[in-house]
Amino acid sequence: MFENDTITNQLHHRSIRAFKDQTLDKDQLETLYQVASHTSSSMFLQQFSIIHVTDENLREKIREICHQPYVGANGDLFIFVADLYRNQQIRAHEGNDAGRLKNTDVYFQATQDTILAVQNFLNAAESMGLGGVVLGSINNDPKALIKVLDLPKMTMPILGLQIGVPDQEPQLKPRLPLGLRVFENHYNHDVDFDKLAEYDKEVETYYDLRDTNKRIDSFSMQINGKKLNNHESTRDEISDAIKEQGLAQDF
Amino acid sequence: MFENDTITNQLHHRSIRAFKDQTLDKDQLETLYQVASHTSSSMFLQQFSIIHVTDENLREKIREICHQPYVGANGDLFIFVADLYRNQQIRAHEGNDAGRLKNTDVYFQATQDTILAVQNFLNAAESMGLGGVVLGSINNDPKALIKVLDLPKMTMPILGLQIGVPDQEPQLKPRLPLGLRVFENHYNHDVDFDKLAEYDKEVETYYDLRDTNKRIDSFSMQINGKKLNNHESTRDEISDAIKEQGLAQDF
Repeated sequence: MFENDTITNQLHHRSIRAFKDQTLDKDQLETLYQVASHTSSSMFLQQFSIIHVTDENLREKIREICHQPYVGANGDLFIFVADLYRNQQIRAHEGNDAGRLKNTDVYFQATQDTILAVQNFLNAAESMGLGGVVLGSINNDPKALIKVLDLPKMTMPILGLQIGVPDQEPQLKPRLPLGLRVFENHYNHDVDFDKLAEYDKEVETYYDLRDTNKRIDSFSMQINGKKLNNHESTRDEISDAIKEQGLAQDF
Repeated sequence: MFENDTITNQLHHRSIRAFKDQTLDKDQLETLYQVASHTSSSMFLQQFSIIHVTDENLREKIREICHQPYVGANGDLFIFVADLYRNQQIRAHEGNDAGRLKNTDVYFQATQDTILAVQNFLNAAESMGLGGVVLGSINNDPKALIKVLDLPKMTMPILGLQIGVPDQEPQLKPRLPLGLRVFENHYNHDVDFDKLAEYDKEVETYYDLRDTNKRIDSFSMQINGKKLNNHESTRDEISDAIKEQGLAQDF
């Protein structure tokens, strides 16, 4: 394996959910914002924005949406927003309509810009000795979050990041073997269930070591379990919320 | 600004589109795959796969879809695929239906997994002294690409990456000032057009220095130009293609 500091951090990535009672300083914030800003941007449209949520009242509201006690607790909370509003305003300023900004294609370009920036930001934070967790849970109730952040039409919150000084050192979680997810030229339609069975054992051992009192869950058991079984969820309001924001009108 | 090797690389990110006639070695590939694999994964569903396209015939077909001569030319070409097929198969193996894998919510989780992995992979490559470019152009004709790669239902190509030893040293492209894209607590509905005018001048200077023969294009001019004006495009087949793949059925 090729080695350097960047890669060492990447290979040891763990989601950190407990942080010391300490916030980022101005220099750290400015660096992280500049890094995010220098992320690749589809067609140079630069369609994301970041909201740094420092207000306790707002943090609490977002914590409620996420149902996760660490969201907006210690550390810094950032919401990454796909932002087609700014470009719409720039077009309106010259008397132009929103054009392709209303289309799914351009909305997806914006979400890509946004998500690439999230990872770039997280890598920079980890290189500083900070830790973080990506918050997909901000989508538990997308319409509520849009209200909380007073987001205009043509924007959509995509992911959150909680970043701070780690106050825990979790185990590295074993990942799918590369043979199951990296292919040459053609996708392999036959899932290798023998390889999967070996991986299931690895995952069981990981959970067993982490918490000896808890039920041991293999990867296959999780995939066959309630996470993916059909059930009602406010998370399914996502497509409605996107359309209400004026985006992906042709989906 | 905070400084270390990771951040220096991130702040100097340029898309590289010309590569030396040299491919990645096994050690580099293995490292990059491991890094991608260790990216944060939503609900630990691990829903992306990577296809390394080494076959000249396939590379040519993808180049045609992308309309970009550097795609599949020198360097290595990777297609990052949102992969809900693997988990569907793992559920089918136990006699379960696809459940929430058919929903937009879980499809978006998969695309997030995929895009986070793209940036992580690119950061690792850049830390090795390699360069790369994110290929949104693989979506120029999503249905054609699905055929070329023989992708099963429940998968969707999201982004490509062309990676290699740089054979060019492009200028750093100026980014939107942070004041226009980083907010505290509330999104600022009033776009600061004075700040934008300053940025427009910066972008003009960048293009002027890059190519003195070409028309000088500010950011605002680009946003008001043909990129975003309404026009017919096969890129608008993206939603059809996703639905045909069995994904986001409730959008």
